[in-house]
Amino acid sequence: MKSLTRYLTLNIPSKMAFKNITPEVAEAVTASGVQEGLVLVNTMHITASVFINDDERGLHHDFGRWLEQLAPFNPDPNHYHHNRTGEDNADAHLKRQIMGREVVCAITKGRLDFRPWEQIFYGEFDGHRNKRVLVKVIGE
Amino acid sequence: MKSLTRYLTLNIPSKMAFKNITPEVAEAVTASGVQEGLVLVNTMHITASVFINDDERGLHHDFGRWLEQLAPFNPDPNHYHHNRTGEDNADAHLKRQIMGREVVCAITKGRLDFRPWEQIFYGEFDGHRNKRVLVKVIGE
Amino acid sequence: MKSLTRYLTLNIPSKMAFKNITPEVAEAVTASGVQEGLVLVNTMHITASVFINDDERGLHHDFGRWLEQLAPFNPDPNHYHHNRTGEDNADAHLKRQIMGREVVCAITKGRLDFRPWEQIFYGEFDGHRNKRVLVKVIGE
Repeated sequence: MKSLTRYLTLNIPSKMAFKNITPEVAEAVTASGVQEGLVLVNTMHITASVFINDDERGLHHDFGRWLEQLAPFNPDPNHYHHNRTGEDNADAHLKRQIMGREVVCAITKGRLDFRPWEQIFYGEFDGHRNKRVLVKVIGE
Repeated sequence: MKSLTRYLTLNIPSKMAFKNITPEVAEAVTASGVQEGLVLVNTMHITASVFINDDERGLHHDFGRWLEQLAPFNPDPNHYHHNRTGEDNADAHLKRQIMGREVVCAITKGRLDFRPWEQIFYGEFDGHRNKRVLVKVIGE
Repeated sequence: MKSLTRYLTLNIPSKMAFKNITPEVAEAVTASGVQEGLVLVNTMHITASVFINDDERGLHHDFGRWLEQLAPFNPDPNHYHHNRTGEDNADAHLKRQIMGREVVCAITKGRLDFRPWEQIFYGEFDGHRNKRVLVKVIGE
């Protein structure tokens, strides 16, 4: 069994945004030499997501507005008890649950087994600082 | 390490529906000969889901009504910017995030390591055309 | 390839609660002897979740209130058709979809490849009885 571990570092200059990280994951798959296997891609932070959807800016606008409706930002510690810790990012912990922590993707014949519209995104909900994404490849 | 790759094709004759694909996944696990390992099952489309829940028609009705409340269909490009592309399926991209893209299941002693009520579903949110599901088995 | 299978049993004395199961998963990883690989952790029940987020009681309060807003408990079979089966837990099946069924985590150098704030939780939405969590380790 072969394996490869990569850590990506991202710094998103806004509270919420979505960044396509498919090229970085595809490069790690190639570097691993794995022909048949799996690749796990997960954020190592709990106010961020990794997910697969469309690389279309209108949709990303819609994601942002929709997540703000489902889990609105509110620094008031009477609204979110998590904000009694002195943080103001409770909403980001909730948004992350909607969008997910990780994706697991198949590797077939040495490549991500994707259709063209499948793109891997890092979703940031509490930006302005360095965050890490883990890429783990296993297979043969 | 052994591996097996299968592509299922589904064509759901309605916009939204849920189809039990557990038999197809179980058959792939058997065909792989893997005794101990993992199986990844993911939709290759971004307006559909793969998830595990109950095979109960009342619950599926509830899923449909609930998802329509959380992410309503609305073709108006002023409501969803994604629909400015000429598509009308922005809601399907959102519903997919709630229900998820993939499941990863354990294989133990050559079988899906499930309790009886765990059933794997394909969830369609933008039907009326062929869609693919990827089944990837790895293990020994 | 090495593998290890563990079943955890939990009995949560309330309808909804979140329990940190990171120590049990870390122990299984150590027991497996796997240095590089993956660990799947999933609930075997369809009214419960396994997810990764912060071990902070204020946030858990927020999760509970938020999930109750998004998918309220309502035993009325006119509200949730699933409750026409004689059960009253349709809301728990919906809450589980928001919070997720499983996590897949990387194992690097024999340990969970986590940052300190990543903690694995069992989320119960229909408690007061024994429930099982599956831990499956594969790797080398």
